[in-house]
Amino acid sequence: MQKECIDFIQKTIEKYDYDGCVIGISGGVDSAVVAALCCEAIGKEKVLGLLLPERDSAKNTLNDSVDLCNHLGIPYKVKKISKILRKTGAYALKPPASIVPRKIQEKYVKDKWRDLPKEDTFIEDLEDRGNEEFLKGLAFYRIKHRIRMCLFYLEAEQRNYAVMGTTNKTEMLTGFYVKWGDDSTDIEPIMHLYKTQVYELARELKIPDFIISKPPSPDLIPGITDEFALKVKYKDLDRILMKLQKNRDLDDEKPEDVQRVKQILKAAEKRKIRNLNVLGDD
Amino acid sequence: MQKECIDFIQKTIEKYDYDGCVIGISGGVDSAVVAALCCEAIGKEKVLGLLLPERDSAKNTLNDSVDLCNHLGIPYKVKKISKILRKTGAYALKPPASIVPRKIQEKYVKDKWRDLPKEDTFIEDLEDRGNEEFLKGLAFYRIKHRIRMCLFYLEAEQRNYAVMGTTNKTEMLTGFYVKWGDDSTDIEPIMHLYKTQVYELARELKIPDFIISKPPSPDLIPGITDEFALKVKYKDLDRILMKLQKNRDLDDEKPEDVQRVKQILKAAEKRKIRNLNVLGDD
Repeated sequence: MQKECIDFIQKTIEKYDYDGCVIGISGGVDSAVVAALCCEAIGKEKVLGLLLPERDSAKNTLNDSVDLCNHLGIPYKVKKISKILRKTGAYALKPPASIVPRKIQEKYVKDKWRDLPKEDTFIEDLEDRGNEEFLKGLAFYRIKHRIRMCLFYLEAEQRNYAVMGTTNKTEMLTGFYVKWGDDSTDIEPIMHLYKTQVYELARELKIPDFIISKPPSPDLIPGITDEFALKVKYKDLDRILMKLQKNRDLDDEKPEDVQRVKQILKAAEKRKIRNLNVLGDD
Repeated sequence: MQKECIDFIQKTIEKYDYDGCVIGISGGVDSAVVAALCCEAIGKEKVLGLLLPERDSAKNTLNDSVDLCNHLGIPYKVKKISKILRKTGAYALKPPASIVPRKIQEKYVKDKWRDLPKEDTFIEDLEDRGNEEFLKGLAFYRIKHRIRMCLFYLEAEQRNYAVMGTTNKTEMLTGFYVKWGDDSTDIEPIMHLYKTQVYELARELKIPDFIISKPPSPDLIPGITDEFALKVKYKDLDRILMKLQKNRDLDDEKPEDVQRVKQILKAAEKRKIRNLNVLGDD
């Protein structure tokens, strides 16, 4: 698993004559794995970590990310993007959260998320559908990853570096990413791996435990973790996705989980084709 | 030509249940045509023009864009993006231009562009290759369209609107766009039309002369127009592109033009596949 990824990164960097690569380090397992793979592929001095926290990032995001960069021995840059986001007007869409203690913020957001109409927020998100307040929430959180993408390229292009993607197969299949945000990259070295496989790889690569053990979260809205939004555990999600992919029997799976996964896959169709409709391309 | 585009916009907006659309109005012919088509397709009150000028935009960009919106009768929003760009650090890559008169800026930039190594700047741009100063220039101008994309979605997502693309076939084939910038949209209604066909359509749609008659320019770097960068006239470029597409005889074309077009197409390969390399997708 490891060797295939490393070879792919090496080959692609060489093919396009990049002088190195840029990776957005989020403190999560996917970016940690991609960074470690890149170190193996092209040497750590050519791997630039970019740490772009903002107003609503979890408290440990920045520390964990710095610690990871130090663990890997890669150069990194920290840039708080709150001021940029403020200038775009995005923060005005949601009340300033910084004066409220984090725990209360998280509880408030979770309660709101649960209370939203139809009570199936992630499906509505995938379908860009909901009431006015919900749509504002979509615009509010998605611009964060898009602005990050802009900054990854600003740094990468100055150095003739590639922008590395960190999206895995589970996220890609379920639409768990921001269109023209974290999906907009030069090279995607783990998009063939399910989330649970990324964890296996993380262990192989000796990614530190403070990264591996924390609950995966997009870190865009306080309190919303991946599994909270997906409403199914990655372990179960991946197993069902694999069975669906291989046309295997689903009789021993919980019917409500299978139902949920199918519902997500259907709703994700819109985002999966990236919703780019080109006249003449049918 | 007109009917096909209008039907396509109508059908796609309906299919995805959008409540309207957002278009970045640049003062150029492509966005004017797309805006006019959208008015026909879904009604002008559902078409929102976004005007996002910045420090280096041409003086008439904003006025022309406002005049066009008024001509079409569509609602519009103006937001200067200079402050956002300043916060990203992009402006620091190139000296502040505002104290220098525009004409001198333009001459300075053109001379620099011409003096760059290998004197074939657009090819180097397509290949992301050049000296340090040149690479800074790429990072500097590209982030402008990417930030615009972020803001188009910020407005669109709040309203359940689609983001309309304005890229034409000539631009798509020659790589004359910013990856993850003006190519990142929901619907592309003129990507099947060469630039010269977009002009025909503009006349059909009665786009005002102040839009049609000005030299096309990406309006990202003072003084750099499309034809200056491409080094071939659109009239000739499109005719050669069409002949190449149809495998027609090129004997009556100027050999240096044919050579130039082929060189551009080759260099554009990297950008055309959007350079997204996904392991397992071969």
